[in-house]
Amino acid sequence: MAAVAGVSRGTVSRVLNGGHNVSRPAAEAVRKAIRQTGYVVNQHARSLVTQRSQSVAFVLTEPQERLFEDPNFSLLMHGCTQALAEHDITLVMTIAGMPDERARVARYLTSGHVDGALLVSTHRGNPLLDALAAQDLPVVACGKPIGYERRVAYVGVDERDGARQMVEYLTGLGRRRIGMITGPLDTAGGIERLAGYREVLGAAGDESLVVTGDYTRASGEAAMERLLAQAPDLDAVFVASDLTAAGALTVLRRAGRSVPGDVAVGGFDDSSIALTSQPALTTIRQPWARISSEMVRLLLGLMAGDAPSAVTLPTELVVRESA
Amino acid sequence: MAAVAGVSRGTVSRVLNGGHNVSRPAAEAVRKAIRQTGYVVNQHARSLVTQRSQSVAFVLTEPQERLFEDPNFSLLMHGCTQALAEHDITLVMTIAGMPDERARVARYLTSGHVDGALLVSTHRGNPLLDALAAQDLPVVACGKPIGYERRVAYVGVDERDGARQMVEYLTGLGRRRIGMITGPLDTAGGIERLAGYREVLGAAGDESLVVTGDYTRASGEAAMERLLAQAPDLDAVFVASDLTAAGALTVLRRAGRSVPGDVAVGGFDDSSIALTSQPALTTIRQPWARISSEMVRLLLGLMAGDAPSAVTLPTELVVRESA
Repeated sequence: MAAVAGVSRGTVSRVLNGGHNVSRPAAEAVRKAIRQTGYVVNQHARSLVTQRSQSVAFVLTEPQERLFEDPNFSLLMHGCTQALAEHDITLVMTIAGMPDERARVARYLTSGHVDGALLVSTHRGNPLLDALAAQDLPVVACGKPIGYERRVAYVGVDERDGARQMVEYLTGLGRRRIGMITGPLDTAGGIERLAGYREVLGAAGDESLVVTGDYTRASGEAAMERLLAQAPDLDAVFVASDLTAAGALTVLRRAGRSVPGDVAVGGFDDSSIALTSQPALTTIRQPWARISSEMVRLLLGLMAGDAPSAVTLPTELVVRESA
Repeated sequence: MAAVAGVSRGTVSRVLNGGHNVSRPAAEAVRKAIRQTGYVVNQHARSLVTQRSQSVAFVLTEPQERLFEDPNFSLLMHGCTQALAEHDITLVMTIAGMPDERARVARYLTSGHVDGALLVSTHRGNPLLDALAAQDLPVVACGKPIGYERRVAYVGVDERDGARQMVEYLTGLGRRRIGMITGPLDTAGGIERLAGYREVLGAAGDESLVVTGDYTRASGEAAMERLLAQAPDLDAVFVASDLTAAGALTVLRRAGRSVPGDVAVGGFDDSSIALTSQPALTTIRQPWARISSEMVRLLLGLMAGDAPSAVTLPTELVVRESA
């Protein structure tokens, strides 16, 4: 192989093992030689000789404060840490919320310092995905990565069905003016949960009942104020995240509306906030432990040479006090 | 040099740049040759040619839940991320709370994947420090690393003076039965804050007034219950962390003691909890932004060849409602 390509054996080995520290012409020569000679990489043998870093990055493409504000991230990180530990792999966490951070993180991830990346919270047009996809780094996204569904492996829940379950439950309670506070509409969760809401309410859908949020608590407060102004007669609201629902509850309390008496509130996530909010939230449970373990399973598969695949998990209605 | 050692120039270079991917005998041969020839490494020239990873680890040697429970960590991480960004360096976060995690993290840190480490929350006898010190990885600790003060650079506050300020303030208010809930007594903050309390109260110190905590909220609840049982006549309590003080406030409320009327409460940290707790905490401010920027400054210095040094910063009493 090295003779055909006209390079050293070390160069061939480096190309086979990811192409780090190899010049573009040398890498091209090796790839051409591989095509000529029909060389097939034995993935198992390769993993035995490869100098793996035995570490995986947990990449949050959100501002740092989101990590600490939303308990979903800590649940997910904890689950991934545990699942990786069973394979003696370290999890390192990086935050790539801002454009300059993304460039630095992409450079770090594609320099051989990690064996793969778990991408959390990916918005449409996230430039980090372009950089990672171009480098053949094994990547698994949490939630469908819009625009990259075919190239990037992911684990998500059936977002639309979860939303349908909640809205059907609210209509089953006899609620007739059901509002919605959505997630960010450049994420699969934002788009699909809104689609599920519209599917159930059909043509009866009233656009004054829908306000866009961004999964934060602050957006729940602002959106609930707008909903109360636009549709003062609403008797229920489906909120696309528990943290956002907690913000909505604060505004309802301030406005003197009882929950669930005057307004029933349904959340999404079943994060720790669902239990500590007052009243405790009726919500849609995302199976966080399962999501984490499936993300790690897919990533280990990619690292062993599997093609990208997608896993969709079911959600479940959890009835508490708010609806 | 290469000729004296009987190895390639590449091997010499690798040994000079950290010894990655060099066999033990080859590394020993190079080091012997260095001693023989009196070769002196020019740190500046070295940094020009070294393949740095342009990343630094933020290592939390605590269980993961502490990261999300105590707002101090997010403040510190945010400050370090900002300070490193100015030098185009990525921060990667790792958690090494459990023994098996420590072994994995030590392996990651000493394999050339990061240029240095910021160690947060170091208890006495932390085996990670042994591993890192042995590998010559630039390391800066947050708070004095007990047993490693001479070998490991660190940034801390004048813990003892901060405690003195608070206890003198409480005595100045006329309080006579002042209790204390300490931090963990295998950390500099735990030991020194208790020493400051004892310095002010002198021989009047009553051991039934001191209960050991561990900086968590739960330890504040348990310790406050014990203090109320052991010394029901106490009229003030100095708590070694704001989060722990928030736990103590919950127990005082439950016990029907008014704050500050019946019991004055003083915290330590001035974290976000000091503002959101009810009543807002009178506390000792740690200059978090300054601590972060000094940690990064020391680390960049070590990476450029400076010897380890220590920076001690002053604290400040912040009077709010609880005392």
